Amino acid sequence: MTEITTAQPRSLTTALDIPRPPDLSWYVQARQPVGYEVNLTRGLLNPDNPALARSVGADGYTSVRTLVVVDKVVDGLYGKALRAYFDAWRVDARWKVMPGDEDTKNLEQAVEVTAAMTEMGILRRTEKVVVVGGGVLMDVVGLAASLYRRGAPYVRVPTTLVGQVDAGVGVKTGVNHGTHKNRLGTYFAPEITLIDPEFLRTVEPRHIANGLAEIIKMALIKDASLFRLLEETVAGIDGDALADCGPAMGEVVSRAIAGMLDELEPNLWEWVLERSVDYGHTFSPSLELRADPPLLHGEAVAVDMAVCVALAVGRGLLSQADAERALGLMVAARLPIAHPVFTPELLEVGLADAVKHRDGLQRLPLTNGIGDCVFVNDVTGDELRRALEFVHAYAGTRDGVRDGS
Amino acid sequence: MTEITTAQPRSLTTALDIPRPPDLSWYVQARQPVGYEVNLTRGLLNPDNPALARSVGADGYTSVRTLVVVDKVVDGLYGKALRAYFDAWRVDARWKVMPGDEDTKNLEQAVEVTAAMTEMGILRRTEKVVVVGGGVLMDVVGLAASLYRRGAPYVRVPTTLVGQVDAGVGVKTGVNHGTHKNRLGTYFAPEITLIDPEFLRTVEPRHIANGLAEIIKMALIKDASLFRLLEETVAGIDGDALADCGPAMGEVVSRAIAGMLDELEPNLWEWVLERSVDYGHTFSPSLELRADPPLLHGEAVAVDMAVCVALAVGRGLLSQADAERALGLMVAARLPIAHPVFTPELLEVGLADAVKHRDGLQRLPLTNGIGDCVFVNDVTGDELRRALEFVHAYAGTRDGVRDGS
Repeated sequence: MTEITTAQPRSLTTALDIPRPPDLSWYVQARQPVGYEVNLTRGLLNPDNPALARSVGADGYTSVRTLVVVDKVVDGLYGKALRAYFDAWRVDARWKVMPGDEDTKNLEQAVEVTAAMTEMGILRRTEKVVVVGGGVLMDVVGLAASLYRRGAPYVRVPTTLVGQVDAGVGVKTGVNHGTHKNRLGTYFAPEITLIDPEFLRTVEPRHIANGLAEIIKMALIKDASLFRLLEETVAGIDGDALADCGPAMGEVVSRAIAGMLDELEPNLWEWVLERSVDYGHTFSPSLELRADPPLLHGEAVAVDMAVCVALAVGRGLLSQADAERALGLMVAARLPIAHPVFTPELLEVGLADAVKHRDGLQRLPLTNGIGDCVFVNDVTGDELRRALEFVHAYAGTRDGVRDGS
Repeated sequence: MTEITTAQPRSLTTALDIPRPPDLSWYVQARQPVGYEVNLTRGLLNPDNPALARSVGADGYTSVRTLVVVDKVVDGLYGKALRAYFDAWRVDARWKVMPGDEDTKNLEQAVEVTAAMTEMGILRRTEKVVVVGGGVLMDVVGLAASLYRRGAPYVRVPTTLVGQVDAGVGVKTGVNHGTHKNRLGTYFAPEITLIDPEFLRTVEPRHIANGLAEIIKMALIKDASLFRLLEETVAGIDGDALADCGPAMGEVVSRAIAGMLDELEPNLWEWVLERSVDYGHTFSPSLELRADPPLLHGEAVAVDMAVCVALAVGRGLLSQADAERALGLMVAARLPIAHPVFTPELLEVGLADAVKHRDGLQRLPLTNGIGDCVFVNDVTGDELRRALEFVHAYAGTRDGVRDGS
């Protein structure tokens, strides 16, 4: 329930004692409580597992309705199992199969989801929307749910690694607009996020690496133990290993999620614009928009992180040896650390847009040693150029092609 | 600042002590503090009045930027004064003039506002959007502000009576979609709402009556004194009287605003779906969509309220005499109380949609005597028919045309 903390005047009398109001003023103040669960479970589509059924209010006896929005690739792989699961629980599920690619992350797609909600005449509070897919679909359906009658409850089932450790566990929704990534969106928490690593078995290696970028980010900014664990295990990380969820992989995934939630919870609405989870997300939006062929989100983040590693070296925040460990981990995760369009000019454009997004200051997160984070506001164009050269020199060495300079 | 109230597990250790997580679970909980001011002031466009300048962060010395979105009719009347005001305060204002009619209350208009924000490269938190116009423009620009980079601060300057006592003082934003009123929207509080009755001098009588409908609503559901005051003064209420803001008119407007805020504050996000301010808003959305020529919002609300008055009589909640006072006040305010397309069938359609919006129950607010409100969930089609007959009989008597039945 909303609680009243202050209201001036508290009673009508105060206002009405003044017969002619030259400057009457009221102050409305309230707090919106927001809570959601993130549940790491196994065998989500096994009818013996009640988690997904419970999330839509089903008990197996009385029929409940729900709208399931599924990524079309996921539907091909798991559509039959999903339908069998909901049938077993007597859920009257309506289905909407949609693309989940970055180039379909637009307002039209979100409006299409609201149209499906209108069409089934979904009840405002008790009937849920379930989104099953990757990060893009999470963001699009989350936006639709937040706009429909000013907010309808929804359940997230992320099926990709980046969805499970990043996009799926927060409260952001959004779509791209014009040439701007996530320009339109809201903060709108799901009722629950259900994470089953089993889905990762069918995720191709490039998309596993995509998610690893966000896990490496978390390690670099706040979890040195996770960083060491990744160094030891990265060579063997693939969809099957993650889906098997042995001790090491279980720790990697749960540390990444716990770290993310730990950073998000005190700052859900981003009142504080110094966000360590923005590490690798300063220059990457501009790169994502310009790279052709397109980069995955995590790939662009890796290229951004590489330059931030070099910036930290330049400022004495990271040793040369730790920088090489960081870059080495990204390479071992099969992530790019450089890109032809990632020029000093593009870096400056990206930084300028980030400054607008961060209300006039750079607020650039940099590693302070591996596992810690500081913010800087005075990065110069020269620094950016030197940082790029550092990364290119490292990449050149690794390829056996020495930089001539 | 967001505050953490609970988090399970609070530390990473808890999660990581379990090596293989069969059912790990986190709970994220936070409260979003929301506060905004509603300021009833005079001479808002007089450069001696600092209220509007302060709302965009201007002090008259340093230049600040703002985007002013103005209704095109208001721009014709007050555009020069607005520009002179902002010039005097050294505000670098960009202008966007837009229509503010119900049939332009759509997502495209809201997106156009966000495009203007992108074009000027507005800073995310410190540079404000100011919306000057009626209820429709408040709702459209409020939605744009809430979507832009997931939320940008905005200032409301309502220039119509309905805007000043209703749409402008709450936190709802929204646009129509398909055949549905306010189907897409958000809850997004402005930084401040600035109300100057002086604007009402140029509002035509029909639009004054439009706002009076919401004031009568407030009187009927919670303020018997306001009801009596309206009975005494309604014949003389027009734009000039309201703009002069003498003791009686000052009391009418401030009582209406205070009553509205009093109802909204404990339930800003509508967790409680029994809302007394929904009085007159159950059947009216369907009427508004079908009336041709179109009705103003308050006119449709009046027609809805009339049938609710009759429903209350049928249930013994309102005496015949009080019902006639209520209907008489609406007529005296030059509001319609009946409409040709407002048939028993349309009433049932409207009620069915309200039930979906109210999560499966009618939650129909009815007067419990004048100045108090109860909710009912079991109104039948027969009752609706009888209530309509009651209203038609009353209207027939007033017109000197007796109903034959």
